[in-house]
Amino acid sequence: MKKNSVEVCFSPLVYPLYENPENIVVVVDILRATSSIITAFHNGVERLIPVRTIDEARAYKDRGYLIAAERDGKVLDFADFGNSPDNFTPERIKGRTIVYSTTNGTQAIQMAGHSRQVLVGGFLNISALTAYLQEQHHNVLILCAAWKNKFSLEDSVFAGALTDRLLAGGRFTTICDSAHAARDLWLLAQGDLIGYIDKAANRSRLKKLGLDHAVEYCHTQDVTDVIPVLEGDVLVRLKKL
Amino acid sequence: MKKNSVEVCFSPLVYPLYENPENIVVVVDILRATSSIITAFHNGVERLIPVRTIDEARAYKDRGYLIAAERDGKVLDFADFGNSPDNFTPERIKGRTIVYSTTNGTQAIQMAGHSRQVLVGGFLNISALTAYLQEQHHNVLILCAAWKNKFSLEDSVFAGALTDRLLAGGRFTTICDSAHAARDLWLLAQGDLIGYIDKAANRSRLKKLGLDHAVEYCHTQDVTDVIPVLEGDVLVRLKKL
Repeated sequence: MKKNSVEVCFSPLVYPLYENPENIVVVVDILRATSSIITAFHNGVERLIPVRTIDEARAYKDRGYLIAAERDGKVLDFADFGNSPDNFTPERIKGRTIVYSTTNGTQAIQMAGHSRQVLVGGFLNISALTAYLQEQHHNVLILCAAWKNKFSLEDSVFAGALTDRLLAGGRFTTICDSAHAARDLWLLAQGDLIGYIDKAANRSRLKKLGLDHAVEYCHTQDVTDVIPVLEGDVLVRLKKL
Repeated sequence: MKKNSVEVCFSPLVYPLYENPENIVVVVDILRATSSIITAFHNGVERLIPVRTIDEARAYKDRGYLIAAERDGKVLDFADFGNSPDNFTPERIKGRTIVYSTTNGTQAIQMAGHSRQVLVGGFLNISALTAYLQEQHHNVLILCAAWKNKFSLEDSVFAGALTDRLLAGGRFTTICDSAHAARDLWLLAQGDLIGYIDKAANRSRLKKLGLDHAVEYCHTQDVTDVIPVLEGDVLVRLKKL
């Protein structure tokens, strides 16, 4: 049986080197964009529109949309709320459309738009994601949103966790150095994940902003089996056959 | 005492995010450019001119220079020899000037040219390099030459080894996620370095080209205490005071 490949891209800046229209791309921004997006769909959001710029988000606001937007971990003044998963409560978002713009995550999602399929991944939906990818017969690229294009420890460790599961399933293989490295970091981290990522710059950043409470939640496995998927320019819930 | 920072950059493509004229930059391309350059100076080369393009190398050839040049691991037809360290024998190079162009390494060296100082590093001179950097009072950036801008396992593991030594000395600190990751990969690899990097794509590449014999040598620690340094556009031997 022909195996499919799994690759890991550590920064959106190097994404063009890995880009391939045949790939299924899993975008990951553990702290916190993709963790929040997964939570939003778990809590019943209907559609989520990722936008790159603050101006785009503001234009949607003027048209009456609900806006989640932050930069550098801080909520923008015109936004309805920011990027913490606990903002996305069923009361606020169930059945609604949200416009979402963050420092790193939403830009990575848009960047991958020319692939076969763009999925939103995180520890929160890792088992559902693994099961879905195992059923497809396509190469997988895990795209780390990183921090302003710099390597991010928590995104890379997640990429390693997903790589490890895909390789363990026997249908995937890899000759990608970053996939090997990410997997080794995951194997090192998995026994005490929160302890391990304590040295991550993003963790310190959130602590300083008083947003540390989201860290443990964002590293919890299998809170949901929902997988957000990009359809055109909009994220919706993946309908499994 | 104020500590200096050590950072790691995994790809020349993201170097602009880390670039700082105050940095001492250590360029690393274990397989094989920086390992060969260190060997050349150990064996008495006088000056080494790194050039980016094949055309530049050819132009130097026409002016009578000795040329070491390869692309994708293969010696260019007009070159005197390629990129394997064992080409740089004292008989061939002692007291001479060499023009040198490779797939990844020489380009990274030129890219870092606007820094405080550009040093050429590898396992071959890691202790001399560590001792020198410990004596300076400047921030250090370790720039991995990578493979066509993609993350390279052996360069990153070396970056981790150097990071580990600098942090152990107590004069350096880091808040750089890639430095932490590289160090953890080194700690994982150090017990069986050759075994660990067996999965690296570059290792397979060299095996296919029949160039595998250089791998063990390039991962040997402390073959020399020579440190090549960029002066203007030319590499020379660092003179320690």
